[in-house]
Amino acid sequence: MANKTKHEKLERLAKLVRYFILASTTEAGSGHPTSSLSATDLMTALLFGRIFRFDACHKEHPNNDRLIFSKGHASPLLYALWAAAGKVSEEELLTLRKFGSPLEGHPTVVFPYAEAATGSLGQGLSIGLGMALNAKYVDKLPYKTYVLLGDSEMSEGSQWEAMQLAAHYKLDNLIGVMDVNRLGQRGETMYGHDLDAYKKRVSSFGWKAMTIDGHNFDEIFSAYRKAAKVKDQPAMIIARTIKGKGVSFIEDKNGWHGKALNRDEYERALKELGEVDKTIRGRIKKPEDLRPEKQTPQQAAPLTYDRAKPLATRKAYGHALRRIFPQFPNMVVLDAEVSNSTYSEIFQEAHPDRFFEMYIAEQNMADMALGLYCRGKIPFVSTFAAFLTRAYDQIRMSQYSEANLKFCGSHAGVSIGEDGPSQMGLEDLAMFRAILNSVVLYPSDAVSCDKLVEEAARHEGIVYIRTTRKDTPILYSVEDNFPIGGSKVLRKSDNDATTVISAGITLHEALAAYEDLKKEGIPIRVIDLYSVKPLDRDTIIEAARETKALITVEDHYPEGGIGEAVLSALATEKTPVHLLAVRKTPKSGKPAELLEYEGISKSAIIQKVKEII
Amino acid sequence: MANKTKHEKLERLAKLVRYFILASTTEAGSGHPTSSLSATDLMTALLFGRIFRFDACHKEHPNNDRLIFSKGHASPLLYALWAAAGKVSEEELLTLRKFGSPLEGHPTVVFPYAEAATGSLGQGLSIGLGMALNAKYVDKLPYKTYVLLGDSEMSEGSQWEAMQLAAHYKLDNLIGVMDVNRLGQRGETMYGHDLDAYKKRVSSFGWKAMTIDGHNFDEIFSAYRKAAKVKDQPAMIIARTIKGKGVSFIEDKNGWHGKALNRDEYERALKELGEVDKTIRGRIKKPEDLRPEKQTPQQAAPLTYDRAKPLATRKAYGHALRRIFPQFPNMVVLDAEVSNSTYSEIFQEAHPDRFFEMYIAEQNMADMALGLYCRGKIPFVSTFAAFLTRAYDQIRMSQYSEANLKFCGSHAGVSIGEDGPSQMGLEDLAMFRAILNSVVLYPSDAVSCDKLVEEAARHEGIVYIRTTRKDTPILYSVEDNFPIGGSKVLRKSDNDATTVISAGITLHEALAAYEDLKKEGIPIRVIDLYSVKPLDRDTIIEAARETKALITVEDHYPEGGIGEAVLSALATEKTPVHLLAVRKTPKSGKPAELLEYEGISKSAIIQKVKEII
Repeated sequence: MANKTKHEKLERLAKLVRYFILASTTEAGSGHPTSSLSATDLMTALLFGRIFRFDACHKEHPNNDRLIFSKGHASPLLYALWAAAGKVSEEELLTLRKFGSPLEGHPTVVFPYAEAATGSLGQGLSIGLGMALNAKYVDKLPYKTYVLLGDSEMSEGSQWEAMQLAAHYKLDNLIGVMDVNRLGQRGETMYGHDLDAYKKRVSSFGWKAMTIDGHNFDEIFSAYRKAAKVKDQPAMIIARTIKGKGVSFIEDKNGWHGKALNRDEYERALKELGEVDKTIRGRIKKPEDLRPEKQTPQQAAPLTYDRAKPLATRKAYGHALRRIFPQFPNMVVLDAEVSNSTYSEIFQEAHPDRFFEMYIAEQNMADMALGLYCRGKIPFVSTFAAFLTRAYDQIRMSQYSEANLKFCGSHAGVSIGEDGPSQMGLEDLAMFRAILNSVVLYPSDAVSCDKLVEEAARHEGIVYIRTTRKDTPILYSVEDNFPIGGSKVLRKSDNDATTVISAGITLHEALAAYEDLKKEGIPIRVIDLYSVKPLDRDTIIEAARETKALITVEDHYPEGGIGEAVLSALATEKTPVHLLAVRKTPKSGKPAELLEYEGISKSAIIQKVKEII
Repeated sequence: MANKTKHEKLERLAKLVRYFILASTTEAGSGHPTSSLSATDLMTALLFGRIFRFDACHKEHPNNDRLIFSKGHASPLLYALWAAAGKVSEEELLTLRKFGSPLEGHPTVVFPYAEAATGSLGQGLSIGLGMALNAKYVDKLPYKTYVLLGDSEMSEGSQWEAMQLAAHYKLDNLIGVMDVNRLGQRGETMYGHDLDAYKKRVSSFGWKAMTIDGHNFDEIFSAYRKAAKVKDQPAMIIARTIKGKGVSFIEDKNGWHGKALNRDEYERALKELGEVDKTIRGRIKKPEDLRPEKQTPQQAAPLTYDRAKPLATRKAYGHALRRIFPQFPNMVVLDAEVSNSTYSEIFQEAHPDRFFEMYIAEQNMADMALGLYCRGKIPFVSTFAAFLTRAYDQIRMSQYSEANLKFCGSHAGVSIGEDGPSQMGLEDLAMFRAILNSVVLYPSDAVSCDKLVEEAARHEGIVYIRTTRKDTPILYSVEDNFPIGGSKVLRKSDNDATTVISAGITLHEALAAYEDLKKEGIPIRVIDLYSVKPLDRDTIIEAARETKALITVEDHYPEGGIGEAVLSALATEKTPVHLLAVRKTPKSGKPAELLEYEGISKSAIIQKVKEII
């Protein structure tokens, strides 16, 4: 009897949520009501059935349970739930998808109860995994993380990256809720309503899998309770649902994805829904008032480098992570099974509890980092620069979560040598520059790399650090500073013939070219553009005005890299710019042979300078 | 007894292959001998045990079996096998990893027996899937496709995208060989030698899975024979192997990934190997001389468009695919479950046998397309522009296979409106421009879109076509031509104050600005830059010289797009360029509101023109 009363209230709440979904999408004239309706009972039970624990007045409470809508197109449901919780007014609901409304077509963090921006499918589970990992291993809090998954999006490989890693880390605080409504955007999914097909896969990946009727509250509650009790395994509730559930003429019908009801259809739907109690509001259970142990930042150890000893910037990256950790105790470090190449292993050895092996699964790594950021951490994420391309969608999406993430791509450019083009990062600068408000750093020596890692940790936002495989000479003193947006003029005279702007391995070629040209009586200016974005426009413009021409040199394809960054800064200036960049398909060979082959070596610079003057 | 003799020859061949692996990597001073040695027995048995059928004198024979090394770092094994087959001399083997050698650190198509470039892990299975799909559904040939997989790379989600789709398409001509050598680059994999962990996963994804000892020829042959007989399912041979097998002091040892033996170690290894018969060569069984049905190109239907009726370029894309198919009978069309948005469904309706649903799995889609290209097809691949970022690593890698692939990204830019930033392609131009020798097309109306799809089909190489969600007016006549590398000057006078260069949705804003400015007596030039790469440098330079300034307008982030492309073309010119682009985090809203908000609308253009003059 108690049970019955409980379900009755939930049923009324679910009806209210359905009403909100229909009202907001019809008002918007677009959106995804059917994908929202299928998950309504699952989510209503979760939030208002005393399963989910969340202090809605203190949404930042560190022990709040987390809920991620991986199927971001079900945003009308997300907004409707929080309306049913009394946190969004009906008036505000009707601003769905309108310019300036926090209720966007797919959730972004402009909506205060969205944990992260979603809408590119197959990302929410990885984000949730980051949050669950944080709970179990970093903050050591009992909160649980729930992820609402669509069945269509289970075809994204990133899901299975997350699946395997969640099992590997024994995340029994992570619960997936799979809304198997059978229909994708343009028809049936690969498995339709074959719940066992999903169960087999999910179980084989080491999860506890349960199949239920997603519209039966008894089954739903039983599953949530079972999931809460699973030990050392994440749990997946695989729910058979009906797309459009509650409105007979759109239920389980193809052609109704991403489509709002028109006014007439809406009126018919409301009739079907019957009386809606618009005054009822759901209550969410509060979490225990637990907080993570307080971390007090300590002074980092001073930087020391032997100026006589060349060192690869990738090694300096590892050293820097270890050095600055006391100052940034919220740091966590992730690496995709190449920590002995990126040298994040230097951090791992010092702080094994803050290092997480991600194995070769870059997409999941990027979104796990986002999940960790969402719980207040500063994630440093490393792999070969080339392989970060694997996570471009995740990186792109993280900007809409206003994320604070640090990516490090090692093995930049053709100068890696013998391993050949597959391992060469040659489009990474273009890729990261095209992220709004990103910071792109490209140190040329160990000292500047170390300092830039520290700058990256301090900066709020997405930062990319490009490192080099080979040892390079130390250029700077440990007293030098490298603010984001700065540059270093390394060689300068009053009568410089031209200016060479570079960073990374090719900066050393520029310095060598300087020496040779000096002997011939041709002075050139050399600028270390360690901050590719934002760049030091003033210094570049000064050089443009004081010298005849600029030459940019980069171990990167010509598009979107240092050359175009400089061109953008000089868009309204009149100084010619000559771009030296990788223009031929790279191959295996010695680094010096490849720099020569691509025309980004000392001799290519000298030749270009002589051509110009 | 017959069996025994056979194995004896194979054992001698395997010994020769091991010798080649060690000799070439020690000579190179780097490379991956241990990862090659673990798979030596598996591959020797395959090639020289009358399983694999390949006419080595006619490597282009359409009925040759295909072999892809997904674990590309085992390239020394690949080269050694072809040396053992008599196709690479020992002298050539010793050029491994040297500048100019076809034997690169990771395979590229410079090596004639590499099907495709690999080395970014987790891509070979998808490539193989494309070849297997081609065999079963397009060319209708009995050849089989084998893919050598590493255990480490099974953590890439892309593998599971391929797994599910291979089962979905019942590809019983696809055989995976998983070399479970337990060790990744920096230590043990997630599952070590737990073969059952892999078997469970593989079976649950619908494959026939077998576990064997990968160094036991009886078990290896039994598995290959069983795999050949499986019906309606792909088969996976999961082989327990020893990394470094054959050289005791590196066998199954951590710290030996990607490391060649030094001379002393090499001598020790050779002693262990014992006498090697360097004269023996393996024979590969020839395939049946079957060829696909000949396709004769027909004239495509003439293009017809009603000039009065606006049409979205995404729809024109679908119409064009259907129209040009008779002319390009090798076309295949792939789409990631959004064919009713990209409008590739128009092609699907007309030619269902040449359309393949890829579901929401963009990584696999891109590499499947590569596999289809490898078998002579012209794949057109579509999804939202935003979601092509998901496949950037695959797209990047395909350039090293010298691929002929056509990508279409729909829903470009903020002008998609209400769905919000997750669905907006805003870095796609940057991403595709940074691919060496890529072509980037951005039509503004249905006619040019149709013609550009035809140009794309005709062009050999990687082409990107960016389409727009909204209907746009028809600008051109069906007689107009749109060569790659061209542009159209739409408005021009002798006294143009400035030139506006644009493409896509913002070109229509530029044309509207032209009308308003004309009324005010301010003539401007307007250029349709439909070919963003390569671009029409002559026309742009002419405009730069004839008008005071250039304004670029694009529905894309400022980096790597039209603005920077124009800057690159004008790098040594003196005309100022003003870039109008998306500079604020986009949101949901009406297309017009968003163009206005981002400063890429008619009014923003007018304002900028007035600022300049």
